[in-house]
Amino acid sequence: MPKQYFSLRNLKFTMHELHKAQEVTEYPYFAHLDREAIDMILESAIQIADNILAPCAIEMDREHMAHFHDGKVTVHPSVKKYIKAIGDAGLIASRAPLSANGSQLPETLNVAMAFVMGAANNAITSFAGLTEGSANLILSFGNQHLKDTYLPKMYAGDWQGTMCLTEPQAGSSLHYITSSASPTSEEGKYKIKGQKIYITAGDHDQTDNIVHLYLAKIDGAPAGTKGISLFVVPQKRIENGQLVPNDVKTIGIFHKMGQKGAPAVHIEAGTNDECFGWLVGEPHKGLTYMFQMMNEARIGVGTTGACIASAAYYAALEYAHERPQGQSLNIKGQDPNAPQTHIINHPDVKRMLLFQKSIVEGSLSLVMQGAKYADKIHSTEGEEKEKYQLLLDFLTPIIKTFPTEMGQQSVSSSLQVFGGGGFCEDFPLEKLYRDIRITTIYEGTTGIQSLALLGRNITMKNGKAAMALFQEISQDIKDATTHEDLKKYATALAGKLGEIQKVTQHLVGFAMKGDTERFLADATLYMEAFGILVVAWQWLKQGTAAKLALLTQNPQGDDLQFYESKIHTMRYYFAYEVPKTQGLMTRLLDDEVLTIQVENGILV
Amino acid sequence: MPKQYFSLRNLKFTMHELHKAQEVTEYPYFAHLDREAIDMILESAIQIADNILAPCAIEMDREHMAHFHDGKVTVHPSVKKYIKAIGDAGLIASRAPLSANGSQLPETLNVAMAFVMGAANNAITSFAGLTEGSANLILSFGNQHLKDTYLPKMYAGDWQGTMCLTEPQAGSSLHYITSSASPTSEEGKYKIKGQKIYITAGDHDQTDNIVHLYLAKIDGAPAGTKGISLFVVPQKRIENGQLVPNDVKTIGIFHKMGQKGAPAVHIEAGTNDECFGWLVGEPHKGLTYMFQMMNEARIGVGTTGACIASAAYYAALEYAHERPQGQSLNIKGQDPNAPQTHIINHPDVKRMLLFQKSIVEGSLSLVMQGAKYADKIHSTEGEEKEKYQLLLDFLTPIIKTFPTEMGQQSVSSSLQVFGGGGFCEDFPLEKLYRDIRITTIYEGTTGIQSLALLGRNITMKNGKAAMALFQEISQDIKDATTHEDLKKYATALAGKLGEIQKVTQHLVGFAMKGDTERFLADATLYMEAFGILVVAWQWLKQGTAAKLALLTQNPQGDDLQFYESKIHTMRYYFAYEVPKTQGLMTRLLDDEVLTIQVENGILV
Repeated sequence: MPKQYFSLRNLKFTMHELHKAQEVTEYPYFAHLDREAIDMILESAIQIADNILAPCAIEMDREHMAHFHDGKVTVHPSVKKYIKAIGDAGLIASRAPLSANGSQLPETLNVAMAFVMGAANNAITSFAGLTEGSANLILSFGNQHLKDTYLPKMYAGDWQGTMCLTEPQAGSSLHYITSSASPTSEEGKYKIKGQKIYITAGDHDQTDNIVHLYLAKIDGAPAGTKGISLFVVPQKRIENGQLVPNDVKTIGIFHKMGQKGAPAVHIEAGTNDECFGWLVGEPHKGLTYMFQMMNEARIGVGTTGACIASAAYYAALEYAHERPQGQSLNIKGQDPNAPQTHIINHPDVKRMLLFQKSIVEGSLSLVMQGAKYADKIHSTEGEEKEKYQLLLDFLTPIIKTFPTEMGQQSVSSSLQVFGGGGFCEDFPLEKLYRDIRITTIYEGTTGIQSLALLGRNITMKNGKAAMALFQEISQDIKDATTHEDLKKYATALAGKLGEIQKVTQHLVGFAMKGDTERFLADATLYMEAFGILVVAWQWLKQGTAAKLALLTQNPQGDDLQFYESKIHTMRYYFAYEVPKTQGLMTRLLDDEVLTIQVENGILV
Repeated sequence: MPKQYFSLRNLKFTMHELHKAQEVTEYPYFAHLDREAIDMILESAIQIADNILAPCAIEMDREHMAHFHDGKVTVHPSVKKYIKAIGDAGLIASRAPLSANGSQLPETLNVAMAFVMGAANNAITSFAGLTEGSANLILSFGNQHLKDTYLPKMYAGDWQGTMCLTEPQAGSSLHYITSSASPTSEEGKYKIKGQKIYITAGDHDQTDNIVHLYLAKIDGAPAGTKGISLFVVPQKRIENGQLVPNDVKTIGIFHKMGQKGAPAVHIEAGTNDECFGWLVGEPHKGLTYMFQMMNEARIGVGTTGACIASAAYYAALEYAHERPQGQSLNIKGQDPNAPQTHIINHPDVKRMLLFQKSIVEGSLSLVMQGAKYADKIHSTEGEEKEKYQLLLDFLTPIIKTFPTEMGQQSVSSSLQVFGGGGFCEDFPLEKLYRDIRITTIYEGTTGIQSLALLGRNITMKNGKAAMALFQEISQDIKDATTHEDLKKYATALAGKLGEIQKVTQHLVGFAMKGDTERFLADATLYMEAFGILVVAWQWLKQGTAAKLALLTQNPQGDDLQFYESKIHTMRYYFAYEVPKTQGLMTRLLDDEVLTIQVENGILV
């Protein structure tokens, strides 16, 4: 197994030097923390990652993958150890406020911990992640009874939480769910009936109960998304202080290509008409509530993309340093007796590694940017708070998409460095390649995220969110321009922003004429171009921070190398990645219509 | 399981209407065939695909995957049935001449059959494919004794053939192999010692013997590739008319991510100093001989990329027709009670399917183009023959690379159409996604192919090969220009060819200054751009052929739809794929050097 799956040096650079995570401790909401506390909490997550998560990652994929037999789901026994460790460290309640016995940690720290733990073992982290997300929904919208009943158990890691959205006939379009909720004589208590699929951690043997946060329609509710309500549907309900079965049956498990350690189950609620659910908040507001969790989950998936790519990159980097193969192109053929060189010395391998590094560190920086905005929302008021909320909302689909789409390419490139070994179980690459493939699908596919970016966020509040982002980027371009040797890149980014604005106006033109289909037909390409530029911004920021360190800190040794590496990778990103927007923009400005109102017979 | 894994209509279009496969039957070498015979032989391959290959494709991946226990390798029992069927049909000897009891079939037909069978089951086809390739090496270079001993058994499918190149320390750089061959008292018979890895079909229980075509160095041979010889090293040798063990031990099996039905084994020859090998041809010419097989194998891998993408595309197309989800973007939100539409009606899904179709059909057309050149080599003489040999040699690395690299993206896009289902074993996508990942690695990675294209083929015979290709393309551009509505695409391609020539000159400039590293540093990007344009040429040809059919044949119904679909997909390819060359060419002309003579510490 590779020695390293992430770089602590880079993580600390990204958190502190770049995004100044510790800044928020100056505001009341995070005043219970300081830089030292942040580092200590991060260190505890690293310990869990090194000692519990990394050692069982491969085992979970092979011998102890999730199984379904005799109506029961079993998973790797380390899951319990992990959930308890995370619970004991107060990390399931990391986002919950102190007032609710939460840890009230900044999102920058949460992202850093998720990155480290996911890089160690990306299948196991979904267990606690889902418990946290669902507990936070109860905390935000549930009544006191629900909070008292569920939160202590969930935050401690004794009970598992899940998100139950998808049904066989309703995935991307939740509009069409048919799970039903019928009122009982007791207020807030409903009889639940329906099926849900792809429920991660929806059943397993490592916690005492499973608590489903379940979308259903109350009898007589309005059609569509405006009639969806949210319920707590436990696998076992409490009666007279005892846990009794609540008629939630696991009827199957999905055999997945990757993340095999985490079960995705098919559940049926109310087979025997004895399943009860408790309404969370008000009726018909379920989807709005769920989207609180969903937006956090989307940032979480972006982090997963980044950290899987990180594990793959460090494995490839280590291999490239150690694997001798071939000779330098400049001496090849001249001396047949010359020894082999390590493959890292081949320009093509170095290019592949620079690509991976640029994606891993660019993605982490992007996710951390979103986290910083989330922290600012907690630390500011009024217009400023609104601005950060807009920035976070605007960036969320990009944070979900860039690290997952480009992360898949990055992991594929890491695999390629291993040659035939990358395709075999001797190295962890084939597993990481399988694992990361789900990330562009769950919590909203790339297509769905792209519709959100172009169809909703660009025009949100008359373009105010987009303007706020362009202002942020412009400020960073200005900062970079003060350094002579960064000007080239700052200017390039400014030019590209002008181009994407032109493309945006062109597309919005169709929306204004009422042609939504034309407006959004190539939204996925728009997302791709926009994402490349947003990460170019992150690279320019990183280059500027590194430049500043080189100028002011007189770094030596590893530190000097680290900052020089940053600037080199920024140069790589601008030379190799940014030009990819050219073809995308050409297409987006092109008037050839090929996917709209075209007969399906055109596809044979 | 999906109903369809390839389109016979499109295959026949590509063979006959586009590349005029039957033309070659007018020349003496293929005069034993006519159009009817070609179609009948293809039909026999389709029967084998439908009846033997497709039914066991999933089983081979799961329950009956290749296993190694008690020193023995077992595979799915259908393998024997398949090899015998192919042997009985004369298809293992499909390329062997009539004079050697071969079928002497044109390469266009061989490619068509490989495409169909590989689309049905891409893991099983390697068994017969490797037997054919290794038998043909014996046929071309072996002495009469070797031919008499091995060919009848191999062509009949009784014995398995393999290619033994890679060793643990020598993969892409065969230069460094250490397997040794020591002369014995018998001429041409050597004692063999060494290890080989990743030997596909290198051991299994479905044939009576395994015949390894094995690269080794004769004691005292020159260093490097000029000292490599080729041997026949059977698993069981013949002594007194009996098969006796030849000290070739299977010491392990590789656990692969995909193509699990075909074992990749680790073998050791001469553990007990009792392994004998028989020299093929002359000493020290082994690599040259092997490259006959390798070039065919590379075209075979290109075909594999194309056919896996085909299976994935038809599965996705079927699913997109049947899966209801969401509403049209132009009516969304207006009527919550409206029924769901099929996802094929969403522009983003249609775009994904058009992408897949353009890659599948573009790749098939490209592979078939290479096959047509191979047939022309057999049917022409003198300068013309030389021209076709140059064209085939020039295109080979592109034929290996485009269908595999773009095929991976295409299969990923097919998987995406299925959403969460694509990640699960309920649908064949996750398997195809795993299977195709090896194709950019084996028989020379994309990096190696790219060095071959730019470093060897572009300058081959003073650029004569490249010139020949540009002439071919120019002729097809001229033909397209006669159709008013194809002019736009013909002009676009002509412009792009001018650009790639400019890029080529820029890069060759470094070679002329002796800076090979700089010349080749971004060869992979050059390959990507070049591949896109070569397939644009194939699409323009397809568009022209379809246009001609529309003008002259008055097609109706399905036929009309087929030709219109061709033109639509050509338009897609020019609108969405060709612009990708812009960013690549920008990079290739850029003077920022980032991967050469850079300290490795830059990667941390």
